[in-house]
Amino acid sequence: MSETALDLKQFIRDVPDFPRPGILFRDITPLLRHPQAFRQAIDQMAWRYRDAQVEVVAAAEARGFIFAAPLALELQAGFVPIRKPGKLPFDTHAFHYELEYGTDSLEVHIDGIEPGQRVLVVDDLLATGGTVEACCQLVQRCGAQVIGCAFLIALKGLGGLERVRRYRPWALIEYD
Amino acid sequence: MSETALDLKQFIRDVPDFPRPGILFRDITPLLRHPQAFRQAIDQMAWRYRDAQVEVVAAAEARGFIFAAPLALELQAGFVPIRKPGKLPFDTHAFHYELEYGTDSLEVHIDGIEPGQRVLVVDDLLATGGTVEACCQLVQRCGAQVIGCAFLIALKGLGGLERVRRYRPWALIEYD
Repeated sequence: MSETALDLKQFIRDVPDFPRPGILFRDITPLLRHPQAFRQAIDQMAWRYRDAQVEVVAAAEARGFIFAAPLALELQAGFVPIRKPGKLPFDTHAFHYELEYGTDSLEVHIDGIEPGQRVLVVDDLLATGGTVEACCQLVQRCGAQVIGCAFLIALKGLGGLERVRRYRPWALIEYD
Repeated sequence: MSETALDLKQFIRDVPDFPRPGILFRDITPLLRHPQAFRQAIDQMAWRYRDAQVEVVAAAEARGFIFAAPLALELQAGFVPIRKPGKLPFDTHAFHYELEYGTDSLEVHIDGIEPGQRVLVVDDLLATGGTVEACCQLVQRCGAQVIGCAFLIALKGLGGLERVRRYRPWALIEYD
Protein backbone atom coordinates (compact mmCIF):
# COMPACT_ATOMS: atom_id res chain seq x y z
CA MET A 1 0.00 0.00 0.00
CA SER A 2 1.55 3.29 -1.03
CA GLU A 3 0.93 6.50 0.81
CA THR A 4 1.16 9.95 -0.69
CA ALA A 5 2.97 12.51 1.42
CA LEU A 6 0.91 15.51 2.48
CA ASP A 7 2.00 19.08 1.78
CA LEU A 8 2.40 20.11 5.40
CA LYS A 9 2.34 23.84 4.62
CA GLN A 10 -1.35 23.39 3.81
CA PHE A 11 -1.88 22.66 7.53
CA ILE A 12 -0.20 25.85 8.80
CA ARG A 13 -2.66 28.71 9.28
CA ASP A 14 -1.51 32.30 8.85
CA VAL A 15 -2.95 34.59 11.54
CA PRO A 16 -2.14 38.27 10.88
CA ASP A 17 -1.36 40.72 13.69
CA PHE A 18 -0.77 38.12 16.41
CA PRO A 19 0.51 38.50 19.06
CA ARG A 20 1.12 42.12 18.02
CA PRO A 21 0.17 44.31 15.04
CA GLY A 22 2.44 43.62 12.08
CA ILE A 23 3.33 40.06 13.12
CA LEU A 24 2.16 37.18 10.89
CA PHE A 25 1.72 34.20 13.21
CA ARG A 26 2.22 30.68 11.80
CA ASP A 27 -0.43 28.65 13.62
CA ILE A 28 0.43 24.94 13.79
CA THR A 29 -2.80 23.79 15.46
CA PRO A 30 -4.46 22.68 12.17
CA LEU A 31 -1.49 20.36 11.59
CA LEU A 32 -1.66 18.96 15.12
CA ARG A 33 -5.34 18.10 14.93
CA HIS A 34 -4.90 16.27 11.60
CA PRO A 35 -3.67 12.76 12.53
CA GLN A 36 -1.88 12.02 9.26
CA ALA A 37 -0.22 15.45 9.08
CA PHE A 38 1.05 15.28 12.67
CA ARG A 39 2.29 11.71 12.14
CA GLN A 40 4.08 12.66 8.93
CA ALA A 41 5.77 15.64 10.60
CA ILE A 42 7.08 13.49 13.45
CA ASP A 43 8.20 10.69 11.12
CA GLN A 44 10.07 13.08 8.85
CA MET A 45 11.74 14.85 11.76
CA ALA A 46 12.74 11.53 13.33
CA TRP A 47 14.08 10.24 9.99
CA ARG A 48 16.50 13.17 9.79
CA TYR A 49 18.15 12.05 13.07
CA ARG A 50 17.78 8.26 12.78
CA ASP A 51 21.56 7.71 12.65
CA ALA A 52 22.60 10.57 14.93
CA GLN A 53 22.73 8.42 18.10
CA VAL A 54 20.57 10.89 19.98
CA GLU A 55 20.44 10.04 23.69
CA VAL A 56 18.31 12.93 24.94
CA VAL A 57 15.71 15.16 23.30
CA ALA A 58 15.36 18.48 25.17
CA ALA A 59 12.76 21.20 24.63
CA ALA A 60 11.42 24.36 26.22
CA GLU A 61 7.81 24.60 27.30
CA ALA A 62 5.16 24.59 26.07
CA ARG A 63 4.91 24.03 22.29
CA GLY A 64 8.36 22.46 22.15
CA PHE A 65 7.04 19.56 24.23
CA ILE A 66 4.51 18.67 21.49
CA PHE A 67 7.30 17.67 19.10
CA ALA A 68 10.06 16.72 21.52
CA ALA A 69 8.14 14.05 23.44
CA PRO A 70 7.14 12.04 20.32
CA LEU A 71 10.63 12.49 18.83
CA ALA A 72 12.25 11.16 22.00
CA LEU A 73 10.06 8.06 21.78
CA GLU A 74 10.76 7.56 18.06
CA LEU A 75 14.51 7.94 18.58
CA GLN A 76 14.49 5.76 21.73
CA ALA A 77 15.98 8.68 23.63
CA GLY A 78 15.09 10.31 26.92
CA PHE A 79 12.99 13.47 27.09
CA VAL A 80 14.14 16.41 29.21
CA PRO A 81 11.85 19.42 29.76
CA ILE A 82 13.32 22.91 29.95
CA ARG A 83 11.01 25.19 31.90
CA LYS A 84 10.27 28.69 33.12
CA PRO A 85 11.59 29.55 36.60
CA GLY A 86 9.82 27.92 39.54
CA LYS A 87 8.35 25.01 37.61
CA LEU A 88 11.00 22.33 38.09
CA PRO A 89 10.99 20.88 41.61
CA PHE A 90 14.62 19.76 41.92
CA ASP A 91 17.91 21.70 41.75
CA THR A 92 18.37 23.51 38.44
CA HIS A 93 20.76 25.30 36.15
CA ALA A 94 19.28 28.63 35.04
CA PHE A 95 19.99 30.72 31.95
CA HIS A 96 18.92 34.35 31.63
CA TYR A 97 18.53 35.93 28.22
CA GLU A 98 17.45 39.15 26.56
CA LEU A 99 14.08 39.62 24.89
CA GLU A 100 12.94 42.50 22.72
CA TYR A 101 11.46 44.01 25.90
CA GLY A 102 13.09 42.84 29.13
CA THR A 103 14.61 39.47 29.99
CA ASP A 104 13.50 35.87 30.43
CA SER A 105 14.90 32.75 32.07
CA LEU A 106 14.83 29.02 31.47
CA GLU A 107 15.86 26.18 33.76
CA VAL A 108 16.85 22.53 33.51
CA HIS A 109 17.31 19.98 36.29
CA ILE A 110 20.99 19.60 37.18
CA ASP A 111 20.61 15.82 36.86
CA GLY A 112 18.39 15.98 33.76
CA ILE A 113 21.19 15.48 31.28
CA GLU A 114 24.43 13.60 31.99
CA PRO A 115 27.87 14.89 31.00
CA GLY A 116 28.81 13.71 27.51
CA GLN A 117 25.30 12.79 26.39
CA ARG A 118 24.28 13.52 22.81
CA VAL A 119 21.36 15.93 22.89
CA LEU A 120 18.90 17.05 20.20
CA VAL A 121 17.19 20.36 21.04
CA VAL A 122 13.67 20.65 19.58
CA ASP A 123 11.12 23.42 19.17
CA ASP A 124 8.10 24.03 17.00
CA LEU A 125 9.40 27.23 15.41
CA LEU A 126 12.70 29.06 14.95
CA ALA A 127 12.39 32.85 14.70
CA THR A 128 15.09 35.00 16.32
CA GLY A 129 16.62 31.98 18.04
CA GLY A 130 16.65 33.32 21.60
CA THR A 131 14.82 30.42 23.18
CA VAL A 132 16.74 27.69 21.41
CA GLU A 133 20.06 29.35 22.17
CA ALA A 134 19.10 29.39 25.85
CA CYS A 135 18.24 25.68 25.65
CA CYS A 136 21.56 24.84 24.00
CA GLN A 137 23.47 26.80 26.62
CA LEU A 138 21.68 24.87 29.36
CA VAL A 139 22.56 21.56 27.70
CA GLN A 140 26.21 22.60 27.65
CA ARG A 141 25.95 23.74 31.29
CA CYS A 142 25.16 20.08 32.06
CA GLY A 143 28.40 19.08 30.30
CA ALA A 144 26.51 17.49 27.42
CA GLN A 145 26.79 17.93 23.67
CA VAL A 146 24.21 19.57 21.36
CA ILE A 147 24.30 17.46 18.20
CA GLY A 148 21.60 19.54 16.48
CA CYS A 149 18.45 21.65 16.79
CA ALA A 150 15.30 20.54 15.00
CA PHE A 151 12.22 22.64 14.25
CA LEU A 152 8.96 22.04 12.51
CA ILE A 153 9.21 25.56 11.05
CA ALA A 154 12.03 28.04 10.48
CA LEU A 155 11.26 31.66 9.64
CA LYS A 156 14.23 32.72 7.55
CA GLY A 157 15.23 36.36 7.63
CA LEU A 158 14.75 36.83 11.38
CA GLY A 159 18.33 35.88 12.13
CA GLY A 160 17.67 32.68 14.06
CA LEU A 161 19.41 30.32 11.64
CA GLU A 162 22.56 32.46 11.77
CA ARG A 163 22.39 32.96 15.53
CA VAL A 164 22.37 29.23 16.30
CA ARG A 165 24.43 28.10 13.29
CA ARG A 166 27.00 26.44 15.59
CA TYR A 167 24.25 24.17 16.95
CA ARG A 168 23.41 22.87 13.45
CA PRO A 169 19.79 24.02 13.04
CA TRP A 170 17.41 22.17 10.71
CA ALA A 171 13.72 22.68 9.97
CA LEU A 172 11.16 20.54 8.18
CA ILE A 173 9.32 23.59 6.80
CA GLU A 174 10.85 26.94 5.88
CA TYR A 175 9.29 30.34 5.21
CA ASP A 176 11.17 33.23 3.64
CA MET B 1 12.12 -11.96 22.91
CA SER B 2 10.32 -11.24 26.15
CA GLU B 3 10.53 -7.93 27.93
CA THR B 4 10.06 -7.40 31.62
CA ALA B 5 7.82 -4.49 32.54
CA LEU B 6 9.44 -1.81 34.66
CA ASP B 7 7.99 -0.69 37.99
CA LEU B 8 7.23 2.86 36.92
CA LYS B 9 6.88 4.14 40.49
CA GLN B 10 10.64 3.66 40.78
CA PHE B 11 11.00 6.50 38.26
CA ILE B 12 8.87 9.01 40.17
CA ARG B 13 10.93 11.19 42.52
CA ASP B 14 9.40 12.55 45.70
CA VAL B 15 10.36 16.18 46.34
CA PRO B 16 9.17 17.42 49.75
CA ASP B 17 7.92 20.97 50.30
CA PHE B 18 7.45 21.86 46.63
CA PRO B 19 5.97 24.16 45.46
CA ARG B 20 4.98 25.05 49.05
CA PRO B 21 5.87 23.78 52.52
CA GLY B 22 3.92 20.64 53.35
CA ILE B 23 3.38 19.57 49.71
CA LEU B 24 5.04 16.34 48.53
CA PHE B 25 5.65 16.82 44.81
CA ARG B 26 5.69 13.77 42.53
CA ASP B 27 8.43 14.57 40.03
CA ILE B 28 8.02 12.70 36.74
CA THR B 29 11.24 13.93 35.10
CA PRO B 30 13.24 10.77 35.99
CA LEU B 31 10.62 8.72 34.14
CA LEU B 32 10.71 11.02 31.11
CA ARG B 33 14.46 10.84 30.73
CA HIS B 34 14.50 7.02 30.89
CA PRO B 35 13.63 5.86 27.33
CA GLN B 36 12.18 2.48 28.33
CA ALA B 37 10.12 3.89 31.20
CA PHE B 38 8.64 6.70 29.08
CA ARG B 39 7.89 4.26 26.25
CA GLN B 40 6.22 1.81 28.63
CA ALA B 41 4.07 4.55 30.17
CA ILE B 42 2.84 5.72 26.75
CA ASP B 43 2.24 2.16 25.53
CA GLN B 44 0.24 1.23 28.63
CA MET B 45 -1.83 4.42 28.48
CA ALA B 46 -2.54 3.90 24.77
CA TRP B 47 -3.47 0.25 25.35
CA ARG B 48 -6.20 1.30 27.77
CA TYR B 49 -7.92 3.30 24.99
CA ARG B 50 -7.06 1.15 21.97
CA ASP B 51 -10.73 0.28 21.30
CA ALA B 52 -12.26 3.57 22.46
CA GLN B 53 -12.36 5.14 18.98
CA VAL B 54 -10.63 8.28 20.22
CA GLU B 55 -10.65 11.00 17.55
CA VAL B 56 -8.98 13.80 19.50
CA VAL B 57 -6.56 13.88 22.43
CA ALA B 58 -6.75 17.21 24.27
CA ALA B 59 -4.48 18.48 27.04
CA ALA B 60 -3.63 21.62 28.98
CA GLU B 61 -0.16 23.10 28.85
CA ALA B 62 2.56 22.38 29.66
CA ARG B 63 3.10 18.92 31.19
CA GLY B 64 -0.11 17.57 29.70
CA PHE B 65 1.43 17.98 26.24
CA ILE B 66 4.21 15.51 27.10
CA PHE B 67 1.73 12.63 27.32
CA ALA B 68 -1.05 13.86 25.05
CA ALA B 69 1.04 14.34 21.90
CA PRO B 70 2.48 10.78 21.91
CA LEU B 71 -0.92 9.32 22.84
CA ALA B 72 -2.58 11.13 19.94
CA LEU B 73 -0.02 9.61 17.57
CA GLU B 74 -0.40 6.11 19.06
CA LEU B 75 -4.19 6.29 18.85
CA GLN B 76 -4.12 7.85 15.35
CA ALA B 77 -6.09 10.78 16.74
CA GLY B 78 -5.62 14.52 16.44
CA PHE B 79 -3.93 16.55 19.18
CA VAL B 80 -5.56 19.72 20.48
CA PRO B 81 -3.70 22.02 22.88
CA ILE B 82 -5.60 23.81 25.66
CA ARG B 83 -3.72 26.91 26.71
CA LYS B 84 -3.47 29.85 29.08
CA PRO B 85 -5.11 33.09 27.90
CA GLY B 86 -3.36 34.96 25.09
CA LYS B 87 -1.43 31.98 23.75
CA LEU B 88 -3.78 30.68 21.04
CA PRO B 89 -3.83 32.92 17.95
CA PHE B 90 -7.32 32.18 16.61
CA ASP B 91 -10.80 32.63 18.12
CA THR B 92 -11.25 30.70 21.36
CA HIS B 93 -13.69 29.40 23.91
CA ALA B 94 -12.53 30.36 27.43
CA PHE B 95 -13.27 28.72 30.78
CA HIS B 96 -12.62 30.47 34.10
CA TYR B 97 -12.20 28.42 37.26
CA GLU B 98 -11.40 28.82 40.93
CA LEU B 99 -8.03 28.02 42.44
CA GLU B 100 -7.10 27.79 46.09
CA TYR B 101 -6.01 31.41 45.80
CA GLY B 102 -7.65 33.39 43.00
CA THR B 103 -8.84 32.22 39.59
CA ASP B 104 -7.36 30.86 36.38
CA SER B 105 -8.48 30.49 32.77
CA LEU B 106 -7.93 28.07 29.94
CA GLU B 107 -8.76 28.41 26.26
CA VAL B 108 -9.30 26.20 23.23
CA HIS B 109 -9.63 27.18 19.56
CA ILE B 110 -13.29 27.29 18.52
CA ASP B 111 -12.42 25.11 15.52
CA GLY B 112 -10.04 22.85 17.43
CA ILE B 113 -12.59 20.13 18.12
CA GLU B 114 -15.60 19.38 15.93
CA PRO B 115 -19.10 18.79 17.32
CA GLY B 116 -19.66 15.12 18.10
CA GLN B 117 -15.99 14.11 18.14
CA ARG B 118 -14.83 11.58 20.70
CA VAL B 119 -12.22 13.24 22.91
CA LEU B 120 -9.76 11.85 25.44
CA VAL B 121 -8.51 14.46 27.92
CA VAL B 122 -4.97 13.80 29.16
CA ASP B 123 -2.76 15.19 31.90
CA ASP B 124 0.31 14.04 33.77
CA LEU B 125 -1.25 14.17 37.23
CA LEU B 126 -4.71 14.32 38.80
CA ALA B 127 -4.84 16.10 42.16
CA THR B 128 -7.88 18.26 42.95
CA GLY B 129 -9.15 17.98 39.37
CA GLY B 130 -9.60 21.69 38.66
CA THR B 131 -7.53 21.76 35.48
CA VAL B 132 -8.99 18.62 33.98
CA GLU B 133 -12.52 19.71 34.75
CA ALA B 134 -11.83 22.98 32.90
CA CYS B 135 -10.52 20.99 29.93
CA CYS B 136 -13.59 18.76 29.87
CA GLN B 137 -15.90 21.77 30.02
CA LEU B 138 -14.07 23.31 27.06
CA VAL B 139 -14.44 20.08 25.07
CA GLN B 140 -18.16 20.14 25.74
CA ARG B 141 -18.30 23.84 24.81
CA CYS B 142 -17.13 22.69 21.35
CA GLY B 143 -20.09 20.30 21.20
CA ALA B 144 -17.83 17.27 21.51
CA GLN B 145 -17.90 14.28 23.83
CA VAL B 146 -15.39 13.48 26.61
CA ILE B 147 -15.00 9.70 26.48
CA GLY B 148 -12.48 9.65 29.33
CA CYS B 149 -9.64 11.36 31.17
CA ALA B 150 -6.26 9.66 31.38
CA PHE B 151 -3.42 10.48 33.75
CA LEU B 152 0.01 9.09 34.38
CA ILE B 153 -0.57 9.64 38.10
CA ALA B 154 -3.63 10.09 40.31
CA LEU B 155 -3.24 11.34 43.88
CA LYS B 156 -6.15 9.75 45.69
CA GLY B 157 -7.61 11.57 48.65
CA LEU B 158 -7.44 15.04 47.13
CA GLY B 159 -10.92 14.76 45.68
CA GLY B 160 -10.02 14.83 42.00
CA LEU B 161 -11.28 11.35 41.14
CA GLU B 162 -14.67 12.17 42.69
CA ARG B 163 -14.82 15.65 41.16
CA VAL B 164 -14.40 14.39 37.59
CA ARG B 165 -16.10 11.01 38.06
CA ARG B 166 -18.60 11.79 35.27
CA TYR B 167 -15.69 12.11 32.82
CA ARG B 168 -14.46 8.57 33.60
CA PRO B 169 -10.98 9.25 35.04
CA TRP B 170 -8.26 6.60 34.86
CA ALA B 171 -4.61 6.68 35.94
CA LEU B 172 -1.68 4.38 35.23
CA ILE B 173 -0.15 5.01 38.67
CA GLU B 174 -2.01 5.78 41.88
CA TYR B 175 -0.83 7.14 45.21
CA ASP B 176 -2.95 7.07 48.37
